[in-house]
Amino acid sequence: MNSPTAVIYARENQQRFLSELKELLRIPSVSTLPEHKADVLRAAEFVATHLRNIGMEHVEVVPTAGHPLVYADWLKAVGKPTVLCYGHYDVQPPDPLNEWHTPPFEPTERNQNLYARGAVDDKGQMYMHIKAFESLLKTAGGKLPVNVRVLIEGEEEVGGESIAKFVREHPERLKADVALVSDTEMFAPDLPTLCVGLRGMVYTELEASGAMTDLHSGMYGGAAPNPFEALARLIIKLKDEKGKILIPGFYDRVEKPSPDELKAWSSLPFDVEHFRKTEVGSKELTGESEFPVLERIWARPTLEVHGMPGGFIGAGGKTVIPARASAKVSMRLVPDQTPAEIFKLYSDFVQKNVPKGISINIKQFSVADPIVVKTDNQFVQASTAAMKEVFNQDTVFIRSGGSIPIVADFEKHLKIPSVMMGFGLPDDNLHAPNKKFHIPNFYRGIESIIRFLQKVGEA
Amino acid sequence: MNSPTAVIYARENQQRFLSELKELLRIPSVSTLPEHKADVLRAAEFVATHLRNIGMEHVEVVPTAGHPLVYADWLKAVGKPTVLCYGHYDVQPPDPLNEWHTPPFEPTERNQNLYARGAVDDKGQMYMHIKAFESLLKTAGGKLPVNVRVLIEGEEEVGGESIAKFVREHPERLKADVALVSDTEMFAPDLPTLCVGLRGMVYTELEASGAMTDLHSGMYGGAAPNPFEALARLIIKLKDEKGKILIPGFYDRVEKPSPDELKAWSSLPFDVEHFRKTEVGSKELTGESEFPVLERIWARPTLEVHGMPGGFIGAGGKTVIPARASAKVSMRLVPDQTPAEIFKLYSDFVQKNVPKGISINIKQFSVADPIVVKTDNQFVQASTAAMKEVFNQDTVFIRSGGSIPIVADFEKHLKIPSVMMGFGLPDDNLHAPNKKFHIPNFYRGIESIIRFLQKVGEA
Repeated sequence: MNSPTAVIYARENQQRFLSELKELLRIPSVSTLPEHKADVLRAAEFVATHLRNIGMEHVEVVPTAGHPLVYADWLKAVGKPTVLCYGHYDVQPPDPLNEWHTPPFEPTERNQNLYARGAVDDKGQMYMHIKAFESLLKTAGGKLPVNVRVLIEGEEEVGGESIAKFVREHPERLKADVALVSDTEMFAPDLPTLCVGLRGMVYTELEASGAMTDLHSGMYGGAAPNPFEALARLIIKLKDEKGKILIPGFYDRVEKPSPDELKAWSSLPFDVEHFRKTEVGSKELTGESEFPVLERIWARPTLEVHGMPGGFIGAGGKTVIPARASAKVSMRLVPDQTPAEIFKLYSDFVQKNVPKGISINIKQFSVADPIVVKTDNQFVQASTAAMKEVFNQDTVFIRSGGSIPIVADFEKHLKIPSVMMGFGLPDDNLHAPNKKFHIPNFYRGIESIIRFLQKVGEA
Repeated sequence: MNSPTAVIYARENQQRFLSELKELLRIPSVSTLPEHKADVLRAAEFVATHLRNIGMEHVEVVPTAGHPLVYADWLKAVGKPTVLCYGHYDVQPPDPLNEWHTPPFEPTERNQNLYARGAVDDKGQMYMHIKAFESLLKTAGGKLPVNVRVLIEGEEEVGGESIAKFVREHPERLKADVALVSDTEMFAPDLPTLCVGLRGMVYTELEASGAMTDLHSGMYGGAAPNPFEALARLIIKLKDEKGKILIPGFYDRVEKPSPDELKAWSSLPFDVEHFRKTEVGSKELTGESEFPVLERIWARPTLEVHGMPGGFIGAGGKTVIPARASAKVSMRLVPDQTPAEIFKLYSDFVQKNVPKGISINIKQFSVADPIVVKTDNQFVQASTAAMKEVFNQDTVFIRSGGSIPIVADFEKHLKIPSVMMGFGLPDDNLHAPNKKFHIPNFYRGIESIIRFLQKVGEA
């Protein structure tokens, strides 16, 4: 069963795997936009159909209050560990549309990259799992080297509420020894990477209301409250120019990474100036300059404004003082901050600082616990050994500044560690226009997962 | 010629006048939106056709670099003064659309009001002029009591660049003794009002650029510059919580209104609490509390934010740090501030305060000079006498916080005063959803203008 035939099968079928992925990428399964609800369902059914076709069992599209989960399993490897494979089939909205060189839902190959919304996050990486299962099943008489459960969600980009509920309420249906999560990135091209920490998140919207109706700035400017001005004042009170968040108590539970971890980070092939130029592309980097950049984005909390809906946003000018305006504000959290506590500190502070003439309503869209996962287990060893074979390089351990809420839920409710083997690249432009997946990494990811499952089965 | 027959004619044709106005209001002549360019032209042609039909001469749709002007005249009243009648046929964008109770371009009557975008500002008031000419021409054998020139523009809501150029370059074609402008409002229902001062304006857009592409706030939050945060910092640096504008030199040329004018304002029927509740509708009024409210909105400059395009503004959450974001910021000016000088002070100050990692590009959309017009002339006397007859009330002199750029141009290039007889009401919601024109004021406006032209002719 542990022969290299599965890897050979994967290599021989690369082109077909890629065209199947393209089919999935054409479905605009944007989970945050109600008008795409049917597309999200279509993506779930696509995934379920493919799981069924390759020989996975108990395939089910599980309805939820939001978008459905896709469940499948194969549990006939008696005495072997069970791996819970997680992924998501939903994507972020593609705007700003005019900055895509090719349409976001028309996957296009250029320079060994596949460009499409969701190419790497997470349709491409999720599909690597499915193609690894197929390669193993087709070359070993319909058998896998370990027990496998598959749980794929359609709400990762909107907070993952339904999967969190499912995990909380059905731990017996998800009984496993380890979770395999491929939704992160490699630290550098050709450098196999395990992600061992994630920031958490609280995503909010501050809705500021002033006048009862939109007003003419000529008639009322100088006497009527301006909600944009009020939001600007609030934003500035939340965070200072040096990147420090000013909410009282905000940093109380922030844990400094261990000296070992910080030391490992400092020896990573990371050049601040190269990062600034090629990834961020701004004149200067910002944030808490007393912390190294990697610590800032992996192990320090932040607060960001993502958009400010309201008022006039067309071309040219309109002299309106809008009755209402909003700011979409999120905070990334680090261990041991908790979303609930931070949201309370934030809400209390905002309400204490509401500018004159304005009312603020605070909405909360999504939360995620921050987490640092354990690395002293056989699964991490199997993973690094598998990637060593495929990449011929030792694995580096990093954290990610992003949030994958389910990883904390797996630890909390299923009591299992996660192995976060990700194959995105730093310039894959997650959540931005021209998102891509480096095609060789799609193939290397499939091989790594094949070898990982085989090694877990051997142990 | 000065018999009341014209007034009687106007009364007998009220219903027809109103339905013609509705026809004009159905044309969505939104001058700021390129997709409405054909509609703007259609409105110009509607106006020209109606001027021609009632017997005005030399009617012409004058092409410009932007939207066309409509010119017409009737110059056969030998020895009589010439009145230049100004109006505009363009309107503001109707958004937010969902706050309109009936569609903005489907004029609807409710409680003696006519609801539509442009009902009062300025299609309805401009059309009063045309119907006054018609009433006079039809009842006096095709003659008017004075010479009349008509100049109607389609760019008032976008800064009026083309009419300004035309006035500057063709003063001989516009030779007149006085300008009649109906684009302002009455101080209170039934209280005839002359507007004698206008605030000026500079409308700008601050475009903030940070990263070279939209970034994921998980991957880059804490190191990448956030353009919304930068704009918030700039806005706060421009204006303090008490409404004071912090740009150095900004107030240097601000003239205090005369003690007589301030005294007249303090005796107007104005209740701050009623104004707050019924017009603004906010918890509190804002701005420079050391100045009375009317002085704040008529004779003090202000700075307002109208919209902040960029980033994610859909429903729900998207964790993007946008590469770019903008703030639409305008300043209202008072005598003797000048748009050019203020724009320079503003731009210099903004560029000196650009937050770290950010570049700011400043666009300027429109400018208007502030003005206080002269009141010691026969035209102002004719106007107050005309309105006394129609309203049976003495006229009050007020200023408006809004901007009508052309009034300053008339003074500067044609050397003529303007009479600003406006018939809007304070709750007509200029530039906001559910804009309306109180129908009895449409009729009283027509009668007032008939009597005004007759009285100017008698003098």
